[in-house]
Amino acid sequence: MTDVRIVSVRVVDLRFPTSRDRIGSDAVNKDPDYSAAYCILSTDSAIEGHGLTFTLGRGTELCVKAIEHLAQFATGRTLRSITDDFVAFSRQLTDESQFRWLGPEKGVIHLACGALINAVWDLYAKVEGKPLWRLLADLSPETIVSMVDFRYIDDAITREEAATILSVSQSTMSERLGHLEAEGYPAYTTSAGWFGFSDEKIRQLCRQGIADGWTHFKLKVGGVPSDDLRRGRIVREEIGPHNRLMLDANQKWGVLEAIERTRALGSLDPWWMEEPTSPDDILGHARIRREVMPIRIATGEHCHNRVMFKQLMQAGAIDVCQIDSCRVAGVNEVLAILLLAAKFQVPVCPHAGGVGLCEYVQHIALFDYLRVSTTMQDRVIEYVDHLHEHFLDPVVIRNGRYMPPHKPGYSIEIYQESLKRYAFPDGDAWSDDHRAMD
Amino acid sequence: MTDVRIVSVRVVDLRFPTSRDRIGSDAVNKDPDYSAAYCILSTDSAIEGHGLTFTLGRGTELCVKAIEHLAQFATGRTLRSITDDFVAFSRQLTDESQFRWLGPEKGVIHLACGALINAVWDLYAKVEGKPLWRLLADLSPETIVSMVDFRYIDDAITREEAATILSVSQSTMSERLGHLEAEGYPAYTTSAGWFGFSDEKIRQLCRQGIADGWTHFKLKVGGVPSDDLRRGRIVREEIGPHNRLMLDANQKWGVLEAIERTRALGSLDPWWMEEPTSPDDILGHARIRREVMPIRIATGEHCHNRVMFKQLMQAGAIDVCQIDSCRVAGVNEVLAILLLAAKFQVPVCPHAGGVGLCEYVQHIALFDYLRVSTTMQDRVIEYVDHLHEHFLDPVVIRNGRYMPPHKPGYSIEIYQESLKRYAFPDGDAWSDDHRAMD
Repeated sequence: MTDVRIVSVRVVDLRFPTSRDRIGSDAVNKDPDYSAAYCILSTDSAIEGHGLTFTLGRGTELCVKAIEHLAQFATGRTLRSITDDFVAFSRQLTDESQFRWLGPEKGVIHLACGALINAVWDLYAKVEGKPLWRLLADLSPETIVSMVDFRYIDDAITREEAATILSVSQSTMSERLGHLEAEGYPAYTTSAGWFGFSDEKIRQLCRQGIADGWTHFKLKVGGVPSDDLRRGRIVREEIGPHNRLMLDANQKWGVLEAIERTRALGSLDPWWMEEPTSPDDILGHARIRREVMPIRIATGEHCHNRVMFKQLMQAGAIDVCQIDSCRVAGVNEVLAILLLAAKFQVPVCPHAGGVGLCEYVQHIALFDYLRVSTTMQDRVIEYVDHLHEHFLDPVVIRNGRYMPPHKPGYSIEIYQESLKRYAFPDGDAWSDDHRAMD
Repeated sequence: MTDVRIVSVRVVDLRFPTSRDRIGSDAVNKDPDYSAAYCILSTDSAIEGHGLTFTLGRGTELCVKAIEHLAQFATGRTLRSITDDFVAFSRQLTDESQFRWLGPEKGVIHLACGALINAVWDLYAKVEGKPLWRLLADLSPETIVSMVDFRYIDDAITREEAATILSVSQSTMSERLGHLEAEGYPAYTTSAGWFGFSDEKIRQLCRQGIADGWTHFKLKVGGVPSDDLRRGRIVREEIGPHNRLMLDANQKWGVLEAIERTRALGSLDPWWMEEPTSPDDILGHARIRREVMPIRIATGEHCHNRVMFKQLMQAGAIDVCQIDSCRVAGVNEVLAILLLAAKFQVPVCPHAGGVGLCEYVQHIALFDYLRVSTTMQDRVIEYVDHLHEHFLDPVVIRNGRYMPPHKPGYSIEIYQESLKRYAFPDGDAWSDDHRAMD
């Protein structure tokens, strides 16, 4: 491959004032301003690598500062020197000897690692002239395995098992590729069911969703029980008995309450209950799952690393693995989790919706289909219909399905004018706001 | 109680250049500069509340910024308005609606919560004119229970069970109080066995430790197997067969390697193996424990909240609960973990050594003895013999035991001149250093 050298890293504190319309609201996250710590790797060529980690507004500045610190491990490096030993690079970030205490492999530091590592992957895919999903799908089993850090997960999956999964899929990839290009990848919409929306708005958005070809709808729950049930009935009425309804409690309940509340919503025939309790509670999820069967249990958007995902699978705690593209340490750790999910036969339905997440996770799901799980059965990517206008290569949805992106990279690049307008606190979007508040 | 109002919060980025002497070094943390994000609550009286969260140098600035942001929830409040509903205050910090995404309840944000909540407790104890351990020990079961957030743990311990534990202990406290004042609380030393120390230095420090009355010694392992064994033999030779040797791998190994390496060190007759693998790996610890019995398994200094401790206990994963005073959200979350440990009958041996941690955790262990576990059996507090000179009320060790502190507060207040000299990057300790490096 052509090589390039990373010469500098610029980080932007980017915030969109979404809380004004209660978009993104749920039982726990009442007023998110969808935001990102966004980084740009400049190189000695015209090609740049872009990456972000998704946040909810306040605190983004902490991720920005963490990325600025970790950027020293990328600056001055050639792309090839990183990709030739990707695990070593990843560990330089996650094991920074003094920073590590603040995690390890969790929270602000790990979110920052995600942004930076994803930016390197965006650069890598652009240099290779391929969309990320295709770059990954074309790699040999040995190369992919060499990019995965098996530390702390080799009791659950060995390198050999991973290589076997990737080898078997390689020979049958071409027919799946044709199917993907023709049909796209199934998705679900979260846009109709935000917590802060009125009954009438939910009803109207469900009708619109059906008209647009959606077949899977998610509703935020975790409020007053009778409200949850009433709102759920509205959605079920509008989407009918055959389309799928998913419920999302966003960590609102304790284990016992989650069991009771999930059972009480059983009459809605939910396809899954998402985040019924603390994202850290592996054994709690396992118990909830046992006690509410056949309602399926989903979690993952707050699951902070591969060690936690490993245990969710070992404990039989989840039916759906909702991987996030930047809460874990970027593409490399995502690969580890996809391989674990394949080993344990848990379907991966990535978390998205937050700014840039739909653009990111489509690549993960496409690669998973082509080279890891090899099936779309019971798999859907989350979709939310906002903020896509800021991206150079926004997702394309057709009849409720993601169509494969074709531009080189990880689809995460944001227009310069958006980066400027929504920069916090000095961009016009915020200084106008401040003026309005004076 | 007399009430005071918090009028402002000042935060200091405090760093001690301990890496110069390899103090604090282990298999994972090679070059720590023992540091703290330190906060001072000023009030409308002469009394101040002090609190810190321990860090290893770089990244302290992130905790400082997080505390500065969270300080808004303390500023302007009366102490009583906080202590009257301590759970509500704690949730204001841990559930800050946009910050929460960066955790939840883990990493930088949670460390910051720990510093601020502990500072409120320091203030509370000073206003009450008692050392923190005594303030806690004198509270009624109902009051203590009201200070604990049972969210996410009520499947493992109910309020009623917690109240029963605290009631039974209350009636028998006076005889334990007498014993404590006379004999102190057992401890162990980590000072002899840092990873970066030479064989000769370890030998010499063990001899000194025996001469000073120590009976429990910890050695850092996780290096080359033959080095670990040789170093372990030196310690065992020096301390003899009857004193206790603890080993600490600081998360170095995967689950399978941990089992193999722990067994290989069995000839040293270790009292426990500490942090054999990832602190997030509950099921991994449970498996290691089953497979290396009778060697006991200890962990906790990186366990980020009560939900993780709950599971370590539910899974039967640990023999020793090494609670940290500021990784979790301060005294309130510590109370939850002490109660869980009592319920599951797991001895608590707090993590210490880092700057301020010995000063902090003695209060936790004393309260645990008086009102929760009611025993010192198999319980020891960690001790490291450095940086105590910066504290107004440093720990007092007599014959390898912590003697109860008597000054009001949480013993965490640092001299103003130390705060100034070790402020990063402008204090003399660092600017001298910079000049020396030029």
